[in-house]
Amino acid sequence: MSRFQSERLSTLTPYTPGEQPRDMQYVKLNTNESPFPPSERAQRLAAEAAGRLQLYSDPTCRTLVDKLAEVYGVDPDEVIVTNGSDEVLDFAFQAFCDKDTPAVFADVTYGFYPVFAARNGIPFETIPLGDDFSIDIADYFGADKTIFIANPNAPTGLALSRDEIEQILINNPDNVVVIDEAYVDFGGESCVPLIGQYDNLLVTQTFSKSRSLAGGRLGFGIGNRSLIADLHTIRYSTNPYNVNSMTAAAGYGVLCDEGYTRANCQAIMENRAWTTLELAKRGFELTESKTNFIFAKHPGIDGGRLYAELKARGVLVRHFTADRIRDYNRITVGKREQMERLLQAIDEILTRCPQ
Amino acid sequence: MSRFQSERLSTLTPYTPGEQPRDMQYVKLNTNESPFPPSERAQRLAAEAAGRLQLYSDPTCRTLVDKLAEVYGVDPDEVIVTNGSDEVLDFAFQAFCDKDTPAVFADVTYGFYPVFAARNGIPFETIPLGDDFSIDIADYFGADKTIFIANPNAPTGLALSRDEIEQILINNPDNVVVIDEAYVDFGGESCVPLIGQYDNLLVTQTFSKSRSLAGGRLGFGIGNRSLIADLHTIRYSTNPYNVNSMTAAAGYGVLCDEGYTRANCQAIMENRAWTTLELAKRGFELTESKTNFIFAKHPGIDGGRLYAELKARGVLVRHFTADRIRDYNRITVGKREQMERLLQAIDEILTRCPQ
Repeated sequence: MSRFQSERLSTLTPYTPGEQPRDMQYVKLNTNESPFPPSERAQRLAAEAAGRLQLYSDPTCRTLVDKLAEVYGVDPDEVIVTNGSDEVLDFAFQAFCDKDTPAVFADVTYGFYPVFAARNGIPFETIPLGDDFSIDIADYFGADKTIFIANPNAPTGLALSRDEIEQILINNPDNVVVIDEAYVDFGGESCVPLIGQYDNLLVTQTFSKSRSLAGGRLGFGIGNRSLIADLHTIRYSTNPYNVNSMTAAAGYGVLCDEGYTRANCQAIMENRAWTTLELAKRGFELTESKTNFIFAKHPGIDGGRLYAELKARGVLVRHFTADRIRDYNRITVGKREQMERLLQAIDEILTRCPQ
Repeated sequence: MSRFQSERLSTLTPYTPGEQPRDMQYVKLNTNESPFPPSERAQRLAAEAAGRLQLYSDPTCRTLVDKLAEVYGVDPDEVIVTNGSDEVLDFAFQAFCDKDTPAVFADVTYGFYPVFAARNGIPFETIPLGDDFSIDIADYFGADKTIFIANPNAPTGLALSRDEIEQILINNPDNVVVIDEAYVDFGGESCVPLIGQYDNLLVTQTFSKSRSLAGGRLGFGIGNRSLIADLHTIRYSTNPYNVNSMTAAAGYGVLCDEGYTRANCQAIMENRAWTTLELAKRGFELTESKTNFIFAKHPGIDGGRLYAELKARGVLVRHFTADRIRDYNRITVGKREQMERLLQAIDEILTRCPQ
């Protein structure tokens, strides 16, 4: 650190992304990436855009936004696109939270929320999940704060129904409720259909998981046009060209191939079901995941140890050290052969390691 | 605007980027883009990266950072890459300014500085340029604030020498001095060679102008490793994957083709000299530009009128409405044939319009 740090910086603890080791080829099940490449049309349009990079990207991202609006059945001015969904979440913290309207979210959820709050100087509170990691929606009624809920939640994988989210909306009419649907395409129920009824609802999603564009950095928000206009004010005060031309083209391309996306999600959900069963057979305890990852612990082996033993065997999963979840590992659901490699490694570990 | 606006948002006036009209094909001289496409290697590497977008980009951008370090003769930990140079500037406001250390910059300079300050809740002061738009470096001595200087300056095009910047560094030993070198490759003198001597110097640059990657969004900062470490803390608290894989690949590719970049800059500087002469012949008053744009006014026609008349003739330039510069237009230097189109339009306007 330098001797010039601002007050903001001096107390900041940044987010730790999943490791991206270069030392060997891993079966990489630690950052919830799709095992499938982006659609061919997405690749082709991105490559074409690479030939025109001397020109600035369209700050309105018109073509992409219009297509998103069509796919999701909303108006273009109910949509904002961002450099990953992290950016739209960050914008929401800036636009809808301040010292008089703190943020609130679960104690176990996406680890970036407290970092966004801290960097933006926004106070926040956390609400503990139940012992089974479930959310009691009544805990959020009349919160008098800006609410952030990852649905399905990460890293637990559990989802609330749209009706349950609607109860939270109804019981917080004067506060924004942000529903972070990064994983919704793997079996969750999206709240996008509610945006016409609730002007306090912002739904965020990402192209990083179901749409195979993690490396392209593309996220979006859908909500009432006045909320979206506010987010655009933040965007134009931060980086009006936040989405580059190649990514905008790739995003448009993948949205033209929704059948491909759906088939990929289906394959992942089938592998999730199979892997869940296989892990349960081996004594693992699992949550009911509606995502492209599995959250699992084994009574016979410490979570950190399992992570390390898997890594030593070339299988990378994600382990969090926070108290409530340190027994668990978050395991991305990939292709069947990747999951077989995981199970082989687990079998070896459970056989060899003293219980 | 929504009824949920934060205190931060309620008073924010966003930056206005140059217009990107879609109604017709313009001779587009309004956003300082390069008239040359990105290098072929940059295009090819970006297209290859499009095939691997299901994987997250490398948050360390190792390959790109190492190449930048090599090209600029610095260590990799003295480099940070960002989503355009706007992002590294924004990070610098967050990392090195607060209520006790306000920002300071010229009254006529890059219009995003006051927006970054406002969005981040940072007080700022401006120092007037001289009547000829020159910077008096003594105005910045002992500023006791974080200094932002665009060098060359925009939209004036004027540059300070490295020796002059060094005097500012020497006379502000306990404050960060940010030198925004977005346009330095068109005849300015970079301060990168000073970073080893001054731990309070941060140099920012962009791939948007000389390197033809405006649509890719790539900027970078070079400075003492402790300054860079601070900026990384902000980056990891904002968007660790801020640079997408395709752009990182394109940036690496263009850095492998520095001869192409130099030849393009040379062509633009020659066109700048030619256009400057032609405009002077027609009675324009011009600053001595060290950038890829010309800043010019004509005693016979109002700046806003000239802008509108040019636009009506299919030539887009940039007009700012701020008091001190409303007589001027900022004209990007493109290819020779684009500048000929500009001059044809100007001749027509000067002939037809009542003076």
